[in-house]
Order: sequence, then structure tokens, then C-alpha cells
Amino acid sequence: MKEKNNAPEVSGNEKRLKIIPLGGLEQIGMNITAFEYGDSIVVVDCGLAFPEDDMLGVDLVIPDITYLKDNIERVKAFVITHGHEDHIGSLPYVLREINVPIYATRLTMGLIELKLEERDMMKTTKRKVVRPGQTVTLGQFKVEFIKTNHSIQDAVALAIYSPAGIVVHTGDFKVDYTPVFGDPIDLQRFGEIGSKGVLALMCDSTNAERQGFTASERTVGRTFDNIFSEHVDSRIIIATFASNVDRVQQIINSAFKYGRKVVLEGRSMVNVITTAASLGYLNVPENTLIDLDTMKNYPDEQLVLITTGSQGESMAALSRIAANMHRRIMIKPGDTVIFSSNPIPGNEKAVSRVINELSMKGADVIFQDTHVSGHACQEEIKLIYSLVRPKYAIPVHGEYRHLKAQAQVAERLGIEKDHIFILRSGDVLEMNSEKAFVSGKVQTGAILVDGLGVGDVGNIVLRDRQRLAEDGIMIIALTLGRISHEILSGPDIVSRGFVYVRESEDLLEEARSVVSEAIDSCLKDHHGSDWNRIKNAIRDVLSDFLWKRTKRSPMILPIIMEVEE
Amino acid sequence: MKEKNNAPEVSGNEKRLKIIPLGGLEQIGMNITAFEYGDSIVVVDCGLAFPEDDMLGVDLVIPDITYLKDNIERVKAFVITHGHEDHIGSLPYVLREINVPIYATRLTMGLIELKLEERDMMKTTKRKVVRPGQTVTLGQFKVEFIKTNHSIQDAVALAIYSPAGIVVHTGDFKVDYTPVFGDPIDLQRFGEIGSKGVLALMCDSTNAERQGFTASERTVGRTFDNIFSEHVDSRIIIATFASNVDRVQQIINSAFKYGRKVVLEGRSMVNVITTAASLGYLNVPENTLIDLDTMKNYPDEQLVLITTGSQGESMAALSRIAANMHRRIMIKPGDTVIFSSNPIPGNEKAVSRVINELSMKGADVIFQDTHVSGHACQEEIKLIYSLVRPKYAIPVHGEYRHLKAQAQVAERLGIEKDHIFILRSGDVLEMNSEKAFVSGKVQTGAILVDGLGVGDVGNIVLRDRQRLAEDGIMIIALTLGRISHEILSGPDIVSRGFVYVRESEDLLEEARSVVSEAIDSCLKDHHGSDWNRIKNAIRDVLSDFLWKRTKRSPMILPIIMEVEE
Repeated sequence: MKEKNNAPEVSGNEKRLKIIPLGGLEQIGMNITAFEYGDSIVVVDCGLAFPEDDMLGVDLVIPDITYLKDNIERVKAFVITHGHEDHIGSLPYVLREINVPIYATRLTMGLIELKLEERDMMKTTKRKVVRPGQTVTLGQFKVEFIKTNHSIQDAVALAIYSPAGIVVHTGDFKVDYTPVFGDPIDLQRFGEIGSKGVLALMCDSTNAERQGFTASERTVGRTFDNIFSEHVDSRIIIATFASNVDRVQQIINSAFKYGRKVVLEGRSMVNVITTAASLGYLNVPENTLIDLDTMKNYPDEQLVLITTGSQGESMAALSRIAANMHRRIMIKPGDTVIFSSNPIPGNEKAVSRVINELSMKGADVIFQDTHVSGHACQEEIKLIYSLVRPKYAIPVHGEYRHLKAQAQVAERLGIEKDHIFILRSGDVLEMNSEKAFVSGKVQTGAILVDGLGVGDVGNIVLRDRQRLAEDGIMIIALTLGRISHEILSGPDIVSRGFVYVRESEDLLEEARSVVSEAIDSCLKDHHGSDWNRIKNAIRDVLSDFLWKRTKRSPMILPIIMEVEE
Repeated sequence: MKEKNNAPEVSGNEKRLKIIPLGGLEQIGMNITAFEYGDSIVVVDCGLAFPEDDMLGVDLVIPDITYLKDNIERVKAFVITHGHEDHIGSLPYVLREINVPIYATRLTMGLIELKLEERDMMKTTKRKVVRPGQTVTLGQFKVEFIKTNHSIQDAVALAIYSPAGIVVHTGDFKVDYTPVFGDPIDLQRFGEIGSKGVLALMCDSTNAERQGFTASERTVGRTFDNIFSEHVDSRIIIATFASNVDRVQQIINSAFKYGRKVVLEGRSMVNVITTAASLGYLNVPENTLIDLDTMKNYPDEQLVLITTGSQGESMAALSRIAANMHRRIMIKPGDTVIFSSNPIPGNEKAVSRVINELSMKGADVIFQDTHVSGHACQEEIKLIYSLVRPKYAIPVHGEYRHLKAQAQVAERLGIEKDHIFILRSGDVLEMNSEKAFVSGKVQTGAILVDGLGVGDVGNIVLRDRQRLAEDGIMIIALTLGRISHEILSGPDIVSRGFVYVRESEDLLEEARSVVSEAIDSCLKDHHGSDWNRIKNAIRDVLSDFLWKRTKRSPMILPIIMEVEE
């Protein structure tokens, strides 16, 4: 007997685990991944991305979660690995449509709550704080949280237990045997889970191109001590990531040791550090933290300012200080300014600009040995693979080049090439102990957020912005009589971002006569009210004229107004 | 008897040498420096700069040479240290106004002539080819050319002899004891001149933050040999700087050794290498260079493609290849692509994008140990200072942070702090053997070149482009009766780069009614024809409305047309 043709093909499908990355950008990737088995979907992380260079005017980028909305009844929870923006930043947007519980460790949850409070979403959001070592049941999944190290505290890896097998997801991690706060990564547990047989390892690739080991966070503390001891006579200003609580802890330690008071500056620095301190992740000796307002009561050599702006962000505190635009802090010759960070790719020039500005004002700028990465290098990646011994490898986190670098590491460790999957956004990877394969693709994408607008800036708007940015705009306005089709006013030419008008009067006057001729001939030839034909004629003749004369292509916008006679 | 009050103050002024940097950008600097003594001015280098991130749509930046024009009768010559754009690129623009002879070594002159030919300026430009070791007399100056090493051949340092003393200007340089072509830097001559007593040393600061020595260009050749021997089965594509003739030479050497044909791709690569070969700076074994068109006659493993695009420039050959937009070259899985370059600050993301695209298409991308810098690190800088032993130090080339780093090196070598001058653009440094001091400032600046326009894009245009790029533009057009002051047509609202119109119809409709109300009330209240008042009302009410609703600030452009009734 034949099966019905239109029956959905099952073929043991429901016995497979599906892994679907939903972050919609090829180049940078927002971290958000669906794990699916039967009637259960668990979403790991819910990050945002910062706009690419060609996304003019865009503030941030969030994922298109159509797939989750279409399967909303199956979504059990968000499970968050750590509190960085690229892992939690989209939650306030996504929760509005997918309101399921969030599972996260305490500091991570604290940082999520900062966002929820800002948007008055605390009451409507279910939040479950978990501890490393704990396991929660989410539909057909069990998820175990495993202690790791990273450039933010309370980061965890996940062991995701499904009927089809165990997946270990490292989150962002490094191996720090001597962390500043709390325990080293729980390597034992990685080994134990590995010995049970792991279906797949999803491992952080960010530093997979780098050989060796990432240094311990503590090495930076030693550098701080050295710098503090060598600069006892000057004010010290240190820029770092607000979220790197351990870094701030070490600065506070050095400050205390050398008898300095600590001032925090920058909104996110104050917010994050206050949250971390209130949750017990920061140990501040009494009377060490002082308010910006009381800074003036202390001599320079008794002060350390910890500030945002280590990436040269134009509105951050350090950039404003460097540009003499900060309300209360001015650089003095002799100040010591430490960049405790590396420029994130794309920020190099902005950082250099701030360094130059600080140097010009006489500051001594230090940026060597003052930062370590939060991500595992090749030897650490090999260590995790060797403890977990997965059947399949799915490199995650990082650009394609980094994923590929990890794939090469995995191959050298003996994982068969066809057991390694570099997934693209939307790929549906189906797997069980017998096989793994990409079975399809779901809708994903990047939703652009500009001001309050979510998704109202798309490719057309960006293309227009690009063109406006390159060569500006030229507007040609005229008023025609509805019946007579005669020009009653204009053509007036207005340009913005094209040429400096006062020095280009001749050019604009010529442009006006070129346009006038074109309109006249249009009106004469066609005796008609086909405004579109006139607009096209204006565009053609004017873009030709301007290209010949200037080799530029401003946007040309004809506006025809019609008047009853 | 008293002197006339309005007599120019001389005070031995004319016995001093003046050094005036004329490159008008603080951050990047175009290399162009005037040396002045009495009735003689010699200009060293005449470079351009590439636009900063906020110079939207600008193609390149050239110096404001008002000072030279004002003193044109004293300008004797341009003396060029080497053929890079930031040292020769402004010549075609500047020569139009200051038509004096150019002195340069042979390859440098060849590259200058490429530019002059393009603009039909060969006949009108006096060109004097010099050899390292040669000295020329230019008014009251003698200028000696001294062999150095750099990432382009035929680079020279200058010994500038004036009645006030000798200045040594290194140009861009490194110390390469084993250069690929020609001789090592003439350290002996630096020492000889030093022993005569040198007034000032102007030394390349680009790598002054880096400890140690820059490796020899030859080390890259060894890396190429290794890569070629490890990739005998695949096509090899190498991206590098067109001007790095030695690099291309080494690729050709490895290609010949491993039995591969070499194809050049990219306009500047073909131009520069053809020029260098024709002048004898490149040694190409017969039948090694083949044309792009004949590439198809050879199997992949017998080919090397040398291409532009090592900086991820969007229109360069490699970027087009990576994006599948090249007419004749497509990446195949298994291709080996070598970046023989480091990203210039600001280009990191663009380079990374190209690496990702190449990786996604299955290419094996190599970028480690495939480049060395062309600039001296700290130990080389110390070496030059120790040979020259100048009285004054004037760090040159590089951003402020780099100049300052060299100043610190100089100080550690025993040069007194007040004998070290970090000059800003336009500073007039006067010096003789008794003293040196900044005595004034001359006009300098950055002239922006956009298409054919030189200087018609200024701050206002750039600010407009910035605003258009961020949030787009909203145009409000209406026609009013001249006598009645009634609205005869409109207000029509047109926006570009603001929101995706089809999804924001409600917003635009509301904006229209907000504007209509404002106009009505203006017309009612004032019964007047004060169009500016109406325009301002439109701007105010609309920008308020849009900010409240979208948190964005598009440019608002009211256009009022007037019609005879």
C-alpha cells in the first residue's frame, strides 16, 4: 500500500537535533542560535551587532526572528552564556515578540536587568538566575551551565542534553588558571561530559588564528602595578571596557596599594560597575571610590580615573576629555593615560586619533602590555577539543576566517573533514549519532535600528544615504500651470552636500539653464502633462552635465508642483 | 637718529634657516616642507593624503600652498625623497601654480612622470634626475642625495647644506643590510656628514613606537619560497603594494624557481611594474611575465597572479575577484591567496571582509610573515641619531603619537628636551648654530579634491554630507500666490535616506499635517510675505515632530515657490 503523497516526510526527522544559527549577518554575526528537538526549541544567546561601515546612520542591528515567531509555541527559553552586548543586546527587542523565560548566571542577569529596567520590562519578563554546575530542564532539553573564564565574569559554557545526543557550547571563553575573581574554567567537567560521548562541540573561534595561549587576566594587574609605581607623581587615567569587571578590580587594587582614590566616568562604566559591586563581583576597599564632583579635593597624584572610550567612540568620556569637550575633566601635561584594551577591528583610526589628541595635550599615553584577550587561542581550543572529543565540530563566534581557522585546528586534531560544519545564518543542521547534514534554510536577516525606528531603514534608504554622503543632493523645483502647462515659477535649484555654493555660482547658473532648456523642449515637444517625462529629462540632462563638469553624481531630485490657473 | 617705525624688523633674521612644514592635516600629514634661507626656498616632497573618515565623498587631500604662492619668486625647486603618493601625489596640482624644477632619483622620477603624462604636463615640467651621492645647488642651498632603503626603490635621504648649517632629512627609510636590489643604506655617508657637525636631524617616526629592528625585505622572499614549495598544486594569488618593486621581484624569483608564469593585474600594478622594469629596477627572466588573456593556456599550478587590493580597496582587483565581480578571474576552492602587506590603519575591516569572502569561496588565505615594514624601528632610529649627532631633533613622518615616540627616543639619546621640536603644520622653525625657536605661523590647510573639483568641497559641504548620511533629508515644497499669500499647491513632502516610505506612510502623512498647520498659522498671523519666517516655522515644527517620533534629525529643506496670480 502506497503512502499518501502529500504527507509530510518524516523519515526519523523528529529523532534528530536541529541547530539553527539565527544571527543574520555574514560578516559579524549576532549570537543567537536555536536548538530544536521535537516540540522544544531553546535559544542560546540573543545578541546585537554594531553597524557595518556601509550602514550609514544605523545605531545597531538586531536579528530577524521570523523563524522563532513562526514556531513560538515551541520556544521554551533563552539561555544566555554571558553579559556582553553581542550576546544579550537584542533581548529587549526580541522579548516583545517572544516572551519566554531567560536563564542566566547572576551577573549576566544583572546586566540584562539594566536593559529591562530602562524599558520598563522587568515585570513582564520571567528571569531565572542559575549557577555554574546547575542543570535546568527545558522541554525535551536539559541544559547544564559550566564555569568558564572570559573578559566578563560569570561566563558559562553549556552542555545541551537532547535525546539525540549532547552538544557542548563553549560560549565566549578562555582558559585562565589564575582568574582575578572566582574559579578557573571547570576543565574537569568538560572532561567528564566528554567521557559520556559528545555529539557536537560548538567552540569559540575568535582567536583561532592565533597560536599559543591567551595570557591570564592577572598579568595585566602586574603591569598596572608597574605603571603605578613608575608614575607616582601624575594623575592616572585608564580607559577600558565597562564590562570588564576584573580589569576594573585590578585597577582598584593598584589604586588602593598606591594610595589613590578611584573615580568612575562614563554612563556604562558607572552602571555596570555599580551593578557588579552590588552583586558582590567587585571588592572595593572603603573610601576608595569617590564621586567625580569630589575629585577636585584631591591632588593629581592621589587620583585614578577609570573611564569609557577605550575604542575611541566619539561620544565616550575619554574622547570628550581628549577633545577638550568634557565638562569637568581636562588633560594636563604630565597626565598618564592608559589604554587598557586593544582596538576592535574597525576602531583603529578612532583610537589613534584620541591617542594623538592626548599626546598633543602633553599626556603620556601607554598602551603596551595593558590588555589581554578574553578569547581562547589555538592551544586552548585544542585543549577543549581534547577534553570533549566531539563527533562533530561546529566552530562558532567570529568572522568566517576565524571559523575556518578553527576548522583547520579541528582537522589537525583528527576530526574528519565532513564532520566539521561552518554554518551560515539560517542553515538548519540536523544531527544524531549516525549522521549530520544541513537539511535546509530558514529566514534570517539583519534588522536595522535607527533611533526609535526598528526595521524602517532598509537597503533603499541605505543606498540613498550612501549616495547623499558621497556627492550630496541637487533639488530642482518648478511650478507648472495645470491647464497651460506653462512654467509659472522656477526652475529653482537648491543643493546640499554637493559644492560650496558661493564658489560655484557659475556652475549652478549653467545647471539652471541646462535644466530650463530641457524642460522647455519637453513642454514644447509633448504638449502634455506627463510630469514623469519632464522629471526624467531633468535627471538625464543634469546628471550628464554635472558628471562632465565635476565627475560627481549627486542625487538629482526634481519636484514639480501643479497650480490651478 | 631713530629708525623708521615701519621698517621690517630684521634682527639677524636672514642669517637663520627656516623650516616650515606645509602639509595641512594634523592627523595624517601630507609631506611637504619648505626650507628657507634668505632669497631661497627649497621644497622637500609634495605629497597628498587620503581622506579621513569624516571627509565623506572626498577622493584625496592636497596641501594649501598659499605660502609658496606668496613667495613664488624665491622657490627654487621641489626635491623628492621617494615615489610614494604621500610624497609625490600633489605634484600635478601644485606644479600648476608653482612651476619650478623637480629633482628626484630615476625611479621616483619615472613614477612622477606617470602622473604628468596622464595630465599632459610633461612638456611644461622641468625634471632633473639625480643619483644618490650627487649634490645639487639650489639658490643658497646645496642638497646632497644619500642612498637609503625603503619599501620602494631609489629612496634617498637629503643633506641640506645652508649657510646656517646642515640639516639631514632621512625621508622614509629603514636600514636593510641585505636589500633585494641595489645597495644598503649609505650609513658611512651619514657618519661622514655627522662628523662635519649637523644642525638638525629630521628623521622618519612612522615606527618609532616599535622596539628593535625592521627585518630585511629578503625575509619575505624566504617566506614566499616556503609557501610556493608547500603549495605546488594550487594557483597562487598574491596581493601587495604596486609600488613595492622589490616585493614583486621576489615573487617573480620564487615563481621562476618553481616553474610558474606571472600575471600582473590591477592598473597601478601594471603601470608601476612596467615603469620599474623599463628603467632596469626589475629583473624578469624571459617568458615569465604573461598576459592576463593567456592565463587560460596554463594550468593553475603553473600560475602566480600578482594583484592590487592588499588594503581591501573596494574597486581594486583582489576585492573584485573576492566578490565575484572580476571579469576574468574567479576564485576556485584550493586557490592560495597571500596578503603580502599589513592593513594600513583604518583598512582593517575592509581587508578582513576580503579575507572572509576569499575563505568562503574555498581559498586558503595566508597573511603571516608575508610582509615587512619599510620604516625604521627604534634601534635603527638610534643608529641614525648616533651617526648624525644633530644639535636639534625634528621628528617627521607619522602621526603625532609617532613623532612624540621619536622625541622620547631622542631624549634618551641625550638630546636636550628643548632641542627637540615637534612641529605642527605651518610652524616656522628658525634656527642657526646658536638657537632654534618657532617664530611664527604661516597659512596651511587641507584642500579637498572631489572628482574634478579642487577646493569646492569645504566644511559646510562636509557637514551637510555627514547629516545626510546619518538621517537623510526631508524636503517640503509649496507654492504660494505672490499677492494672495495663499497656498496654491502643496505642501508636498519628499524624503530620501530617512525612512522606507512605504512602511512609514502614516508618519509622513502626520508630518504633512503638522507642516500644513504651521504654515497656515504663519500666514494667518502675519499676513505677510516673509517666506523666511515660514521656512523657519516649517523647520522648527517638523524637526520637533520627527525627533519625538523617531529620535532622528534629517536635514529639513523647505522650498517655497512664488506664483503671479
